[in-house]
Amino acid sequence: MSLFSKKRIFMDYAGGKDNPSAIYAEGVRSRRELEGARTSIARILHVGSKDIIFTSGGTEADNLAILGTFEMAKEKINKPHIIISSVEHPAISETAKEVERRGGEVTVVQADEEGLISPQEILNEVKDNTILISVGLVNGETGTIQPVSKIGRLIREYRKDLPAGRQEKTFPYLHTDASQAANLLDLSVESLRVDLMTLDSSKVSGSHGSGCLVTRPNVILYPIIFGGGQERGLRSGTENVSAIVAFAKALILADKNKEKESERLNVLRKYFIEEIKKKIPNVVINGSQEHNLPNIVSISIPNVLAEFMALKLDQKGIMVSVGSACNSRKNLPDKETIRFSFGKFTTKSEIVRALKAL
Amino acid sequence: MSLFSKKRIFMDYAGGKDNPSAIYAEGVRSRRELEGARTSIARILHVGSKDIIFTSGGTEADNLAILGTFEMAKEKINKPHIIISSVEHPAISETAKEVERRGGEVTVVQADEEGLISPQEILNEVKDNTILISVGLVNGETGTIQPVSKIGRLIREYRKDLPAGRQEKTFPYLHTDASQAANLLDLSVESLRVDLMTLDSSKVSGSHGSGCLVTRPNVILYPIIFGGGQERGLRSGTENVSAIVAFAKALILADKNKEKESERLNVLRKYFIEEIKKKIPNVVINGSQEHNLPNIVSISIPNVLAEFMALKLDQKGIMVSVGSACNSRKNLPDKETIRFSFGKFTTKSEIVRALKAL
Repeated sequence: MSLFSKKRIFMDYAGGKDNPSAIYAEGVRSRRELEGARTSIARILHVGSKDIIFTSGGTEADNLAILGTFEMAKEKINKPHIIISSVEHPAISETAKEVERRGGEVTVVQADEEGLISPQEILNEVKDNTILISVGLVNGETGTIQPVSKIGRLIREYRKDLPAGRQEKTFPYLHTDASQAANLLDLSVESLRVDLMTLDSSKVSGSHGSGCLVTRPNVILYPIIFGGGQERGLRSGTENVSAIVAFAKALILADKNKEKESERLNVLRKYFIEEIKKKIPNVVINGSQEHNLPNIVSISIPNVLAEFMALKLDQKGIMVSVGSACNSRKNLPDKETIRFSFGKFTTKSEIVRALKAL
Repeated sequence: MSLFSKKRIFMDYAGGKDNPSAIYAEGVRSRRELEGARTSIARILHVGSKDIIFTSGGTEADNLAILGTFEMAKEKINKPHIIISSVEHPAISETAKEVERRGGEVTVVQADEEGLISPQEILNEVKDNTILISVGLVNGETGTIQPVSKIGRLIREYRKDLPAGRQEKTFPYLHTDASQAANLLDLSVESLRVDLMTLDSSKVSGSHGSGCLVTRPNVILYPIIFGGGQERGLRSGTENVSAIVAFAKALILADKNKEKESERLNVLRKYFIEEIKKKIPNVVINGSQEHNLPNIVSISIPNVLAEFMALKLDQKGIMVSVGSACNSRKNLPDKETIRFSFGKFTTKSEIVRALKAL
């Protein structure tokens, strides 16, 4: 270890100091930190270290999952087809549009009135040329938790029943963007029965600039960024080691605390919803009553502009997000939503303050 | 400003605290910091703020320049053609291979024995379907400075002489990856006469995880990452504001010091080369004698394995990079190189120590 204690010279400008691909001692140390972070994350997700591809964040990981699958599949399959839900983040829905531009086919499955996606409806849309299904583990707007593992079970049965040899029984892959869920839900890739999973560091209180795509050994992808061949050739560009180490630390912490934290937040959420209903009788609580993250409350108030309300709340020190449930439900008109998210440091007295502000 | 001093609640888990697209006050502050960094960088590069597209780093910016131009051009031009030099970083050369896979055409122009690219030879390769030329401002291996502004002058004349209306006189674009040069060379996009320029934060002693592509107003690109539509729709994904702010700060510092620093390093470089020649008479100094960065010395020693030497030097606290000048020169056999880079904190006594170690 004495190597590391010596004063290092040179390489200052060339940006090589923490380049994990360099062969000098600091490069070796950097690589060790990178691989340590990879192992920690893999352990939490119940996958192998090789299954983790670090990216610049969730958006890029979603793009790699969709475009990487599409580009690989289109060499074998005519007009590859993907299925997404109607409540996906733009990183999914806009990338799906790009698949269409590149000659693929896209089906959007609508959510029900609680924002939930039906596994059977997904299965009904699967065709011979279906290569990928992407359903976010949590609807970021309402906090609704999707039945991803049920979709996974149906898809595995479908793949098993394929005639031997066809598509090597690998398609369709199931992808989930679990970014919104990472703080509070179980992230075991095996329990979720997914082939690909996206995580974003900033959503687990890590820093911006890091995220990962989990790819199971049955998945073959094509890269979307080309160069030095880092991350098994799937993501070129020197790894952002400090952000990745922070990402791993944040995920370890979240994993340790998620059970207790979920319980605590569930109590706060119930209280907040009860009180809001008392204060604003015509309020609509969006999302699912049964399958919802404990830290998100999405409301709509008839005849109140969400943006106006958000700015007013902001002046009182309450930060909320404004969204639109447009297109996210079947047969329902678009409506504006206000999203409250509770965090690690949210206490009951703050909830009371928020209620007063409302 | 009192808005910012209030204690903020919520949004902790949703990663929104420093999301510059959010409408609450912290989002507004974050956007202000982001735009401040953009303006600072634009000023140094002599371009407008709108010309700066932040990316996750240099590799991604190179990919956006090449694939973004290709995808946009291929709708109008049959078999779009790009020209690169033989001494480009893999972020350029591997992305060029991807252009070929997508149905484009690539020409590689060889460097001469000093690692220099001839502007006239570039021009000779330009055809009706040429959409992009990419030549790095500095060869990262040897430090050779390429005559990019001369290439720019030839290309501008070529574009002006095109028949009116054809290709709207915009193609070919000229792109340069200036990452290796950012600490010590003038980065005025106008003086360099380029249409696209890549910078990487980690190469100016900023943090990893940030970089930018400069795109002049005449350039129309197609995105390579899709989603929330950040960065004028050309780079989706929440901006990594803290890394971007650090990038801007580092670039401002580099810009302020580059003249004095270049002089200082030039003296060190000359001394180092003279002494090395005395100690190892058969040493070969790679790169150009005249057009070379003052902080890089690339050497080859006949019959000495570069990797072995690098490890030996590393044990003495000297970090060097090992490379291969393979394919980078015309009619010359491949050979191994050892690269010494001098940094901000490199002093003459350290140079003496390195010489002793050698």
